[in-house]
Amino acid sequence: MEFTVQQIADLLRGQVLGDGNAKVSRLAKIEEGTPGSLSFLSNTKYEPYLYTTGATAVIVSKNLEIKQSVSTNLIQVEDPYSSFSTLLEIYQQAVAASREGVEEPCFIGQNSTIGARHYRGAFSYIGKNCRIGEGVHIYPHAYIGDNVTIGDNTVIYAGVKIYPDTVIGSHCTLNAGCVIGSDGFGFAPQKDGSYKAIPQTGNVVLGDHVRIGANTTVDCATMGSTIIGTGSKIDNLVQVAHNVEIGKHTVVAAQTAFAGSSKVGDYCTIAGQVGVVGHVKIANKTIVGAKSGISKDIKEEGTFVQGAPAFDYKQNLRAMAVFRKLPELQKQVDELREKR
Amino acid sequence: MEFTVQQIADLLRGQVLGDGNAKVSRLAKIEEGTPGSLSFLSNTKYEPYLYTTGATAVIVSKNLEIKQSVSTNLIQVEDPYSSFSTLLEIYQQAVAASREGVEEPCFIGQNSTIGARHYRGAFSYIGKNCRIGEGVHIYPHAYIGDNVTIGDNTVIYAGVKIYPDTVIGSHCTLNAGCVIGSDGFGFAPQKDGSYKAIPQTGNVVLGDHVRIGANTTVDCATMGSTIIGTGSKIDNLVQVAHNVEIGKHTVVAAQTAFAGSSKVGDYCTIAGQVGVVGHVKIANKTIVGAKSGISKDIKEEGTFVQGAPAFDYKQNLRAMAVFRKLPELQKQVDELREKR
Amino acid sequence: MEFTVQQIADLLRGQVLGDGNAKVSRLAKIEEGTPGSLSFLSNTKYEPYLYTTGATAVIVSKNLEIKQSVSTNLIQVEDPYSSFSTLLEIYQQAVAASREGVEEPCFIGQNSTIGARHYRGAFSYIGKNCRIGEGVHIYPHAYIGDNVTIGDNTVIYAGVKIYPDTVIGSHCTLNAGCVIGSDGFGFAPQKDGSYKAIPQTGNVVLGDHVRIGANTTVDCATMGSTIIGTGSKIDNLVQVAHNVEIGKHTVVAAQTAFAGSSKVGDYCTIAGQVGVVGHVKIANKTIVGAKSGISKDIKEEGTFVQGAPAFDYKQNLRAMAVFRKLPELQKQVDELREKR
Repeated sequence: MEFTVQQIADLLRGQVLGDGNAKVSRLAKIEEGTPGSLSFLSNTKYEPYLYTTGATAVIVSKNLEIKQSVSTNLIQVEDPYSSFSTLLEIYQQAVAASREGVEEPCFIGQNSTIGARHYRGAFSYIGKNCRIGEGVHIYPHAYIGDNVTIGDNTVIYAGVKIYPDTVIGSHCTLNAGCVIGSDGFGFAPQKDGSYKAIPQTGNVVLGDHVRIGANTTVDCATMGSTIIGTGSKIDNLVQVAHNVEIGKHTVVAAQTAFAGSSKVGDYCTIAGQVGVVGHVKIANKTIVGAKSGISKDIKEEGTFVQGAPAFDYKQNLRAMAVFRKLPELQKQVDELREKR
Repeated sequence: MEFTVQQIADLLRGQVLGDGNAKVSRLAKIEEGTPGSLSFLSNTKYEPYLYTTGATAVIVSKNLEIKQSVSTNLIQVEDPYSSFSTLLEIYQQAVAASREGVEEPCFIGQNSTIGARHYRGAFSYIGKNCRIGEGVHIYPHAYIGDNVTIGDNTVIYAGVKIYPDTVIGSHCTLNAGCVIGSDGFGFAPQKDGSYKAIPQTGNVVLGDHVRIGANTTVDCATMGSTIIGTGSKIDNLVQVAHNVEIGKHTVVAAQTAFAGSSKVGDYCTIAGQVGVVGHVKIANKTIVGAKSGISKDIKEEGTFVQGAPAFDYKQNLRAMAVFRKLPELQKQVDELREKR
Repeated sequence: MEFTVQQIADLLRGQVLGDGNAKVSRLAKIEEGTPGSLSFLSNTKYEPYLYTTGATAVIVSKNLEIKQSVSTNLIQVEDPYSSFSTLLEIYQQAVAASREGVEEPCFIGQNSTIGARHYRGAFSYIGKNCRIGEGVHIYPHAYIGDNVTIGDNTVIYAGVKIYPDTVIGSHCTLNAGCVIGSDGFGFAPQKDGSYKAIPQTGNVVLGDHVRIGANTTVDCATMGSTIIGTGSKIDNLVQVAHNVEIGKHTVVAAQTAFAGSSKVGDYCTIAGQVGVVGHVKIANKTIVGAKSGISKDIKEEGTFVQGAPAFDYKQNLRAMAVFRKLPELQKQVDELREKR
């Protein structure tokens, strides 16, 4: 989207110093500004960049004293940081609002309903008996199986796959390629050493304001529901197995995996490449360091663990410090034994 | 799908105690039953839940003595556990049978054939010269390249991508978003430090009853075939590189990766987030603990390893126990050295 | 594709010994040859296979003395290895050239242009205002958002998802299911412990000759660009977070993750399942061993590190050697303390 500098100034109730007709089409840090980009200057530490930036326009405080000649155009406002935040939100709303209508061909099954102000991209698929709210965006190649419920203003990006019977709240964001509701990984060993699949009859339930990353996978429950609570944010390429329950406002970084039936509390922070074994419980506000392996319950709120298997973060740091010097330690012990 | 309690009882040759017209539409554990759900009571440990469950109906033994008033409806059978298993299978068959026919638009290339009783979802794509068996389900947005062979009763979920020349057995399940046959990761270093792609001309061969998880990737062979044997079950987000061979009835948990040309035996159990380096061989019935790294051959059948790099499981447990106390050990050695 | 042995011989300016009308349709190692396959014999170590191979034809040196009877057909050439390489390239070009034209239905938005000799598969989607070069292959179910730029001869495999505003160079290969430009994982913590998404307004820029693996994810920048430099090769299921910059001719193996704003140099080799924390810088020509965790800057070119957290590769090997024997070391120390 392209705007004139004057249009931006009007939005922000600011004043233009320079060419109001200059056009900007993207946001950039002031030190990385190029023609067509709009930046802001809030922290005076960055003021030197104001005189060298390649940005077409910069939002500045109306109290800022200009000390050298500037080649960029200025938009003077009360509070540049808050103006920039406002702009980000307007940008996001504009992007959202620009998506409305239906591109053909797309598919919608019998008995499915979808609310007002929605977008359905070409080649999107909605099965039978779905209930989809208002303002929902369904991008191309999204697949929504039968009997799925989706709340208002949720965004389903390109190529998301949602299995039948899934329940998704409102204001959720599902990034491209994620899979919600795939078969849980459950097999009954047979006498001959082979495995027989256990039918997976449950579903997945996502609360409101849940964010799922690109190519993340969330398996359905064997019976009952795999649950991700309201406000939780899951990064890319995360694995959430059958019957896992993740609480509210918990953040999970990329490539972490939760094995079957593990339970994670509210307000937890789980770093990247963590593994959680099946059936363990993790207390509220737990912090788990990157690459850790959680092999047993974490019972105390606010615990910070690290390692595989994980234990107290600081204790792990100290153990790792000695680990690096193990050859030296071995040598010291060898000497002691010799001289004994 | 919705059934009356009487219909379920008839299926199971059982008898209704209560309202045969009540409707159930899903299965639930007795302690998690809600209106509309059907549970079973086999282990008498759970009997107290019978008097409090919210389930609409519960399958019980005809020999069970009802000790309190129940608000749920009972279906009395010979053996509740086996009845429930029967029901799960019937459920699965019913789900399968309900998928038949062709949704438009979908694409099928020249000279491709597909057997009876199949399902092809809208926006599914089948290339040229494919041979696809009977009872195969191909969900929306599945991509099947040219010259692919697929056996009977295989299920290809939404958005699965199968590259040309792949061979897939019968009774396989490919979960949503998995990729079969992507280019192997092979590059010839050039004199200037850059890399030139080595053409990947091989394919992927999956046996019968193979299960591939959501968003798992299986690369084609440089020449010849990448192979996953009959009965093997691969979880979500697993990486299988070019020319890997996985034996029969081997189970691989989520986010594990096999590097190029590694060979895994039959009846192995590989836990999650394991890495196997290129060209190593793993004997039959090997068990690999979570997050392990396999850097050399495992020659003895039934070996259980753990760690990165992996070694004997028990030895690793003992080493980890000392690892946690390394700062203490260092202190002990320091003291010995001082007092020497 | 099927060729006669004579056609192959003509391509390679070689001579047929045997049946020139025999047909071959794939390449195989000489020890794995089966009817219909074409092999080559360069290293004389493999000569015994020449007399037993099941391959329909084998490319051999015209100087090779045939010592036993052969049942396969021979194609005699000057240099078998270079002939085989030539053949691989011709094969690849033939595969590429065979993809041309447009399959219906496919979608192209207003004001988008695409160059000559392109392929667009059925159900492929191109948004508005895209600029796509010549000889580009866009497979079925590929999604290309608005304002995307793609250079000449780039291949976009099935189900690739490219978010709006992405810039992709020429001669790139994007394997099936990868996601380019998904929302960066950035959230502002709120006073009540919940998180608010920070609008992600940047994009992704890929240089020329970049290779992206199947189901890999590359997030867009918060502002500015996430960058992967010319010639870099990224394997499957890799995570590249917002504002990451990867240099030129760097190779990254499967399931590795780069956290936000990390910078990786040129000519680096990053093995599989590595994790790199946010904001660190990795010097040119760095080598990182599998499963390592990079938690701080690597400043010296050509460094080889291993471990989580990573340190010098050899030092890590030595520490791991002692780690395995930690129970023994503890016992030695216990003995020394007792006998003191």
